[in-house]
Amino acid sequence: MAQYSAQLDGVFIALADPTRRGVIRRLGRGPTSVGELAREFPMTLPSFMKHIHTLESNGLIHTAKSGRVRTCVLNRERLAVVDDWLAEQRQTWEERTDRLERLVTDPEENTR
Amino acid sequence: MAQYSAQLDGVFIALADPTRRGVIRRLGRGPTSVGELAREFPMTLPSFMKHIHTLESNGLIHTAKSGRVRTCVLNRERLAVVDDWLAEQRQTWEERTDRLERLVTDPEENTR
Repeated sequence: MAQYSAQLDGVFIALADPTRRGVIRRLGRGPTSVGELAREFPMTLPSFMKHIHTLESNGLIHTAKSGRVRTCVLNRERLAVVDDWLAEQRQTWEERTDRLERLVTDPEENTR
Repeated sequence: MAQYSAQLDGVFIALADPTRRGVIRRLGRGPTSVGELAREFPMTLPSFMKHIHTLESNGLIHTAKSGRVRTCVLNRERLAVVDDWLAEQRQTWEERTDRLERLVTDPEENTR
């Protein structure tokens, strides 16, 4: 549970930046080399590499070096923790709606 | 577009903390006073209020004061921007899968 919470912290931090979301969107179209990616984002290479590192250390992308080229690959499974968290919230809301509905259709529920 | 991106930054930052996610989950069960909420989270009131402020300034909750009691209400609509963003990513992945499928079933596609 603590591990899941720490994972969520990291994933949400990684997603809280337009460059990092841009990289995720770009990698959704397929694996891409760091060099090619960097050309699409207007910043210095060291700044861009910090974003790549944040994405990789939080498990949202993998990178692998072959010769002189480092390729980035999206890890879609890690984004699923966001889906799971949203689904948990929806479940809480639905339980509340069900409870309110029972109160309306059976007011005695309130006094039980 | 820039506004949507800034909204996403704020929402993801607000979600990148276990206390703030805990408040969102708790408010999913219904509106709650700040005092009652604060008792459920083991920290000083000023620290807790900072989290409430982050949630409110990023539009995830509303608060309203009536007499001496400030009540917090979840703003579910703001969480929908996360759903929308995830849906955009999924669309990109599906387009890629469609493209790969076309390449497999019609290899000449590649040379067009």
